[in-house]
Amino acid sequence: LSEFDLIRTHFRGVGPLRPDVALGVGDDCALLRVPSGLELAVSIDTLVCGVHFLPDCEPEALGHKCLAVGLSDLAAMGAEPAWATLALTLPRRDEAWLHAFAQGFSSLAADHGVALVGGDTTRGPLSITVQVHGLVPQGQGVRRSGARPGQLVCVSGTLGDAGLALLRLPARDSAAEHLRVRLERPQPRVALGMALRGVATAMIDLSDGLAADLGHILEASGVGAEIRLAELPLGSDVAEYVARTGDWSVPVAAGDDYELCFTLPPERSSVLGGLARRSGCAVRVVGEVTRGTGLRCLLPDGALWAPVETGYNHFPGAG
Amino acid sequence: LSEFDLIRTHFRGVGPLRPDVALGVGDDCALLRVPSGLELAVSIDTLVCGVHFLPDCEPEALGHKCLAVGLSDLAAMGAEPAWATLALTLPRRDEAWLHAFAQGFSSLAADHGVALVGGDTTRGPLSITVQVHGLVPQGQGVRRSGARPGQLVCVSGTLGDAGLALLRLPARDSAAEHLRVRLERPQPRVALGMALRGVATAMIDLSDGLAADLGHILEASGVGAEIRLAELPLGSDVAEYVARTGDWSVPVAAGDDYELCFTLPPERSSVLGGLARRSGCAVRVVGEVTRGTGLRCLLPDGALWAPVETGYNHFPGAG
Repeated sequence: LSEFDLIRTHFRGVGPLRPDVALGVGDDCALLRVPSGLELAVSIDTLVCGVHFLPDCEPEALGHKCLAVGLSDLAAMGAEPAWATLALTLPRRDEAWLHAFAQGFSSLAADHGVALVGGDTTRGPLSITVQVHGLVPQGQGVRRSGARPGQLVCVSGTLGDAGLALLRLPARDSAAEHLRVRLERPQPRVALGMALRGVATAMIDLSDGLAADLGHILEASGVGAEIRLAELPLGSDVAEYVARTGDWSVPVAAGDDYELCFTLPPERSSVLGGLARRSGCAVRVVGEVTRGTGLRCLLPDGALWAPVETGYNHFPGAG
Repeated sequence: LSEFDLIRTHFRGVGPLRPDVALGVGDDCALLRVPSGLELAVSIDTLVCGVHFLPDCEPEALGHKCLAVGLSDLAAMGAEPAWATLALTLPRRDEAWLHAFAQGFSSLAADHGVALVGGDTTRGPLSITVQVHGLVPQGQGVRRSGARPGQLVCVSGTLGDAGLALLRLPARDSAAEHLRVRLERPQPRVALGMALRGVATAMIDLSDGLAADLGHILEASGVGAEIRLAELPLGSDVAEYVARTGDWSVPVAAGDDYELCFTLPPERSSVLGGLARRSGCAVRVVGEVTRGTGLRCLLPDGALWAPVETGYNHFPGAG
């Protein structure tokens, strides 16, 4: 098997057959059809071993996660997933590893109707780059720049589970094993993101933590926000951790949750319950957009929380 | 500077402003418009340090090459380049390196009207993944599968210069320095590829060597081919090398030339001269498509050349 065959063998038929794929894996390019009236949404992300995932991460989970990260970006735009490309760099050929990786990738791709249309396989230190392609009606993509003072700040799901897993798993804390699924198999909030078209005024997915990612919305929109930490949706482990340690950085500043954070006018808040039910994902109002700049997080006693760090920085220290 | 700022700072404004970019770098996704009647051609490629480029490769040349490799795939489809995304994995932050890399990338992007619309920057062993996006009138993309017996096999430019550079440069042969430009700054044959729409019946770009890449056309088309090695277009260094050593593997089996190889009906061969002139790139007929399977390469004396290797295999040995 050459490199050319490697990706063909393991990834042939990944995802559904889609009539908008004129030509898939195996030529110099894939050829894709974008219906008129729709815009193409694209996002590219790399996961590096030891940086974005633990070296002991199961290949099947890794196949899931590298696609989930991209689908989460599409969700944050309100786009419907369509196609993906995969560039895989592997230290050596390992058929069992590839098979398991392809299983994880394929399963999530099938869930979201995503066809794998192209790829590249190279030798080198383990890393995975996926580009996702989605479709959104022209002008309806939900950007980061639409938040306005007085609007509500909302988040989906629960926050901090992945961060707590990352804190506990390297210490071989077996009590944290059930949190691993949140770290390694995030569920991109695709249905919720699409349902929020025309409702959310700004949206982002939480890859780097609430403080950092909401910070991007605030910066792009030229506004500030106030969050009430007591309103954050927490799973029982994170709630117990915060109650015991007083450390809010796990739900506020740890990454990898892949929940959605969005803003909407208060008069639209009545639709949230129905949207959440239909998309199978809880939604909680956690604060408000304010005039000015920057994020203020209020502790349950009303005091201001001082963040120690905001999100994961791949290049700390310098500059 | 966070990772988010890194790519913004160095890659802001790379390539031209394009009216079909509704939203560029800096949100969860880019939003792009594909005019109706056109298909979207996409290709993704990774370059790994030490595998695809020499560790002493100048960052400016590397910025050029990682985009050139993708544009060459678009050329092989007959697609017009439009947008690119860039996922950059770097061992450490190095502003001077990034600046030079961005210069190389930008300069080639500007030459071909390509806008950088998204990216990711991560920490890890140096590698670069680029996805290119091009546009081609519906049904006019030139695939690998259209070669038919009796058609001519053609190649653009000259073959083997990059392979000879790769052979000589690691030995610090200063006489080979002028070949470095062919290895590190390949010129994607975009104009020629677009001109060959409706003319070429099958096309591929030569990244893994003529034997391997023409082999992909033959396999996809279910045909064979016969090449006359004496007809291969060779630069003076490669011609001298082959004359001295009798080693045809450099022009036939070494990769990285990024020339186009294509087939066309003999009755269309009269258009080749005009196409070559208008696209500024020589074109040569080097053989014919035959019935059967496999590639036969005839030495100047008419004997059959036995290839030792066909193309670069990233995962040799196993399987």
